[in-house]
Amino acid sequence: MMVYVIKVGGNVIDNPVLLEQFLADFAKVQGKKILIHGGGKIATRIGDKLGITANYVDGRRITDAATIDVVTMVYGGLVNKQIVAKLQAVGCNAIGLTGADANSIPASKRPVKEIDYGFVGDVVAEELNISSVKLLLDAGLTPVFSPLTHDGKGQILNTNADTIASSLAIALSGSYAVRLIYCFEKKGVLRNAADDDSVINLINRDIYQTLLAEGVLTDGILPKLQNAFNAIESGVKEVLIGHADDVRKNTTDAVAGTLIC
Amino acid sequence: MMVYVIKVGGNVIDNPVLLEQFLADFAKVQGKKILIHGGGKIATRIGDKLGITANYVDGRRITDAATIDVVTMVYGGLVNKQIVAKLQAVGCNAIGLTGADANSIPASKRPVKEIDYGFVGDVVAEELNISSVKLLLDAGLTPVFSPLTHDGKGQILNTNADTIASSLAIALSGSYAVRLIYCFEKKGVLRNAADDDSVINLINRDIYQTLLAEGVLTDGILPKLQNAFNAIESGVKEVLIGHADDVRKNTTDAVAGTLIC
Repeated sequence: MMVYVIKVGGNVIDNPVLLEQFLADFAKVQGKKILIHGGGKIATRIGDKLGITANYVDGRRITDAATIDVVTMVYGGLVNKQIVAKLQAVGCNAIGLTGADANSIPASKRPVKEIDYGFVGDVVAEELNISSVKLLLDAGLTPVFSPLTHDGKGQILNTNADTIASSLAIALSGSYAVRLIYCFEKKGVLRNAADDDSVINLINRDIYQTLLAEGVLTDGILPKLQNAFNAIESGVKEVLIGHADDVRKNTTDAVAGTLIC
Repeated sequence: MMVYVIKVGGNVIDNPVLLEQFLADFAKVQGKKILIHGGGKIATRIGDKLGITANYVDGRRITDAATIDVVTMVYGGLVNKQIVAKLQAVGCNAIGLTGADANSIPASKRPVKEIDYGFVGDVVAEELNISSVKLLLDAGLTPVFSPLTHDGKGQILNTNADTIASSLAIALSGSYAVRLIYCFEKKGVLRNAADDDSVINLINRDIYQTLLAEGVLTDGILPKLQNAFNAIESGVKEVLIGHADDVRKNTTDAVAGTLIC
């Protein structure tokens, strides 16, 4: 039995039309599945209205005490529960979670070195409690994770959704054959960033090294590929990077995106 | 095996010191348990900052489109996930839910008559999906419900926490012996509102009629008692009304509050 661990990015979350279509497609994916959603820009918009300014260092959001409250509200509440309600409306029995729920994803607050990221959590992979996630999956429920974890001491932490997705995929690979799918705004990893149809269908370690040497890979795709290889090397059967529109195709054998193996 | 369905009100949610103590006590309650929390004033404070004014008609909040987003964020996100993280920190394996999650509490948008309450949901008792809640309880998890439901068509609805508590208690009474406990800021139903120690230890239908005739019951306690009698008549074994500080005592035989039977 294949389990699909599917991450959908902020660009889809931010666009009601894209989101509705994606959720309708996701609901039709057969078999066991998990959705992990990014946050999108709505947390920044609401933070701005509340007088809380988003701070970035090297493109990474700094999560101060006011900001962790905003993302807990927006990612864990507004975005997550709206997705759950919309999935219920299209016949998918979703249950919305953070990593604090059922202690599913313990994390440690990132240590302060040159940068103090604030309330950002790094997943403690070996402490992931996958039994509750399996309980839900085996009962026919579809867990929907927001990009939040906790430190076990009462503090919610902001955690990268791509990392949550790969951590869950790895942990589940002990019990199921897992396909991890990163949905984003491109059809896959592109050979030519200007050509949306230049999808590289297959990337293995050798091809990856060649693409790196050729300078083909953009900054945006590199962390996804690193997560992907980490997942494969840790037991995940297949990783796919593809367009949110192709989520149904990418849960069949006729994949449309980039397969990493 | 007794299941405790425990509702804690907004006055505790609004006070960090009270909340921390309550959660520490709640975590120590032995056996299967469910927590239902009210919203408190934080939604109003955040709504105010966002420029969304709370409207009340006859003391009831009108939930317009902007307000349902605020309460979804605040009740379903901030309050619920902070409670879950804090319970995890004191050894209680909590999982935070709304009525949309696992389609646990379907509701219908209240029909517009003299007042349009907006996105307020009345629980559809006969459609409650208690199997997922039982699945979680039997796995040793503690469901924590925020006062939100959904209409099955993609819309989150604002629902009274007392009603959610009694609806869950009634639905669970088919499988377990259930004690429903309403925690609030008084030690129980008081004979004399000015005397905090004038707790009425036992109320049955006859005593209730007498108290009504005597004019002893305040407006605040009447809906709780009506919910309580409704629960008892629908199969719930015991209903207790008591102080949040007494939650541990009220899950033993040496109850400190008012027992309704």
